[in-house]
Amino acid sequence: MNIELINTGSELMLGRVVNSHHSWICRELAGLGCVVTRQVAVADSAPDIRAAVREALGRADLVIVTGGLGPTADDLTRDVIAELLGKKLREDPTIVARIEEFFAQRQRPMPPRTRVQALVPDGARVLANAHGTAPGLFMEANPNPFQAGGERSWLVMLPGPPRELRPMFTEQLIPLLRQKLPRPAAFACRTLKTTGLGESLVEEKIAGPLQPLTAAGLEVGYCAQVGAVEVRLLARGREAQTTVARAERIVRERIGQHVFGENDDQLETVVVRLLTERRQTLATAESCTGGQLANRVTNVPGASAVFLCGWVTYSNEAKERLLGVESGTLAAHGAVSEPVARAMAEGARHRGGVDYALAITGIAGPKGGTPEKPVGTVFIALAMERKTVVLNPVNPYDRETFKYVTSQQALELLRRSLLGQLSG
Amino acid sequence: MNIELINTGSELMLGRVVNSHHSWICRELAGLGCVVTRQVAVADSAPDIRAAVREALGRADLVIVTGGLGPTADDLTRDVIAELLGKKLREDPTIVARIEEFFAQRQRPMPPRTRVQALVPDGARVLANAHGTAPGLFMEANPNPFQAGGERSWLVMLPGPPRELRPMFTEQLIPLLRQKLPRPAAFACRTLKTTGLGESLVEEKIAGPLQPLTAAGLEVGYCAQVGAVEVRLLARGREAQTTVARAERIVRERIGQHVFGENDDQLETVVVRLLTERRQTLATAESCTGGQLANRVTNVPGASAVFLCGWVTYSNEAKERLLGVESGTLAAHGAVSEPVARAMAEGARHRGGVDYALAITGIAGPKGGTPEKPVGTVFIALAMERKTVVLNPVNPYDRETFKYVTSQQALELLRRSLLGQLSG
Repeated sequence: MNIELINTGSELMLGRVVNSHHSWICRELAGLGCVVTRQVAVADSAPDIRAAVREALGRADLVIVTGGLGPTADDLTRDVIAELLGKKLREDPTIVARIEEFFAQRQRPMPPRTRVQALVPDGARVLANAHGTAPGLFMEANPNPFQAGGERSWLVMLPGPPRELRPMFTEQLIPLLRQKLPRPAAFACRTLKTTGLGESLVEEKIAGPLQPLTAAGLEVGYCAQVGAVEVRLLARGREAQTTVARAERIVRERIGQHVFGENDDQLETVVVRLLTERRQTLATAESCTGGQLANRVTNVPGASAVFLCGWVTYSNEAKERLLGVESGTLAAHGAVSEPVARAMAEGARHRGGVDYALAITGIAGPKGGTPEKPVGTVFIALAMERKTVVLNPVNPYDRETFKYVTSQQALELLRRSLLGQLSG
Repeated sequence: MNIELINTGSELMLGRVVNSHHSWICRELAGLGCVVTRQVAVADSAPDIRAAVREALGRADLVIVTGGLGPTADDLTRDVIAELLGKKLREDPTIVARIEEFFAQRQRPMPPRTRVQALVPDGARVLANAHGTAPGLFMEANPNPFQAGGERSWLVMLPGPPRELRPMFTEQLIPLLRQKLPRPAAFACRTLKTTGLGESLVEEKIAGPLQPLTAAGLEVGYCAQVGAVEVRLLARGREAQTTVARAERIVRERIGQHVFGENDDQLETVVVRLLTERRQTLATAESCTGGQLANRVTNVPGASAVFLCGWVTYSNEAKERLLGVESGTLAAHGAVSEPVARAMAEGARHRGGVDYALAITGIAGPKGGTPEKPVGTVFIALAMERKTVVLNPVNPYDRETFKYVTSQQALELLRRSLLGQLSG
């Protein structure tokens, strides 16, 4: 089974954007037990797209082309592929209606050019686009004219914008591929998400205990992300499920307190779920993270049941007036200090009328550090009914990474507390 | 001048990492006036690497291969390429000494396998590695056995780790390329960032007026991003600078009010810059965007000079208590309404003691919509000294896209206002 990906876009060739499609699609396909054999990217140029598709069809059973389905003159993929495979393009009235509806919903006029997106090559199956106007297309080249054996190959075209491509891929293409592709060998894969330990420390703690299973074929992968480390457990063959389950048990025995979820779980999703189950409420008071913590919590659908309010108190005056931090505390200890973090959290808990309040004050940088409090210094406070706990990590990263890692530590503090895992 | 990049790594095929080499190298080469024609990635497999390099040499004048030069068993690039070009590998004593020194400095024993990195194909030029053990290699295939014409091609191998590759590229490869490559044709490129118009509407407004220039060779690219459309203007030849400048003038004449920046500019950066220049201040009051707006503003270094505070008032009670929205207004119009947005903005402006306050209230979904106020309904208010303006767009997207698009519209409202472009 050979699978090749082709991404089109002149902006890629100029280095203006990082290609995130390839890694995302590879990950999705790996979940089906399929490993991609080649990734290609070319400019929005008809000869380059034609050559790339032709060569890929010469080698692969499945070719996935992304981008170039939009309405502008540099969107060439549909035309080039229809011509290459000798298929006529016909306007599909269902797609036209869908595009008209898209613009009507947004109360905007429909530009005439957008109608080109309703053109479908003969014999292609349409993948509806729930988040944009360009549908995806699924075609079968049977026999495949570019392979000596003339075997059957599949060719898929997907729109470029990730928020259109991703749901189309998971909701429509994956079920179709499950149906069409030869059944892969038995295969089990589980990804555990951890936080609070570095990648090499995670490996140090679990690689030894997993050794008997890895010797018998278990594959263990580590992937360091910002504020998290993924542990991937993969096995093949008839015993795959059992092997992965045993491996998971071993990982949880060793570093279970750090495992906050699986697969695509985010820490904010886990925290909102725990609060919802307990019918408890949260408020946030942020200085250096500037709303990132509230933003992450409110990314979770249903967050409004548990998250009541948040403050972003960037100035000292705002800390005093909005949260009731005393000016004497600010003067004595500075805004970035344990007493100020504590006062912010307690003020937010009281003024928000909530069960838990998280407060963050620190130095995001790039400026503002001192020898005693370098850039990256941060205080994270969690105010609860009976007590307030304060952490003081140092996160010496660039500004956006600092904000993410810090909000991750705050969410983990709350998660541990909700699970009764907080010591002291 | 055809340039192709090949990245090797099995982790890429599993989607475990995003390929950042390609965009980085393309950007560096664009700075030399060279545009890459194809990017390829394959697994750490000898047949796959061999096929990719062979095909690239069949088309390109310059092929840059990254990864697979290290000491482990899956590092195959050097061997595969030497064999493909029929070159013997010889150990280079200077590199051996360099590797020995590397380990001595770190007071670690030198693993015998690392010595393989000192092997150099006949005729290759060595690019020293200041940050690791694997040197880069620069080879000339003259004549190139894989092209019919038998022209000369260059083949470069670089180590995979970014902190080894990048300095080697800028400090050693770029000077070498400047020496070796034919002087590239003059080249100019400018990217304008717009917001508030869809991709096809942007094209509709500018493609006609640009036609005389495109007929003469100007390349126009459109790239739709969430909440923004990039317009890329590219020209070659002696008149390149003049052509791009003329094209930019035309674009600005037609849709100048929508152009908020260039290249890597973000709307929040532009807004913080404008406020800083004017010594004016901002507060935010967010319901459905949940802190995203404050988070974006505080991503900008130096934001603390202009952004004083923000509220995330998710519950009605928080809107009343923290911002002073009257309960009668909430009862009469609902939380998602023009009067509530207005009251939130005016309350935030007053309580924050700022020049400008942005307020947002809406329905992010996926639940909470009604027939009169469907998911995606939003009110954005900007309170200023003399008046408050309110926008009422409909943004029917998934939750995170909704938040981003909405915060983008809010920032754009403020930008237009700061520039005196607000009508009415």
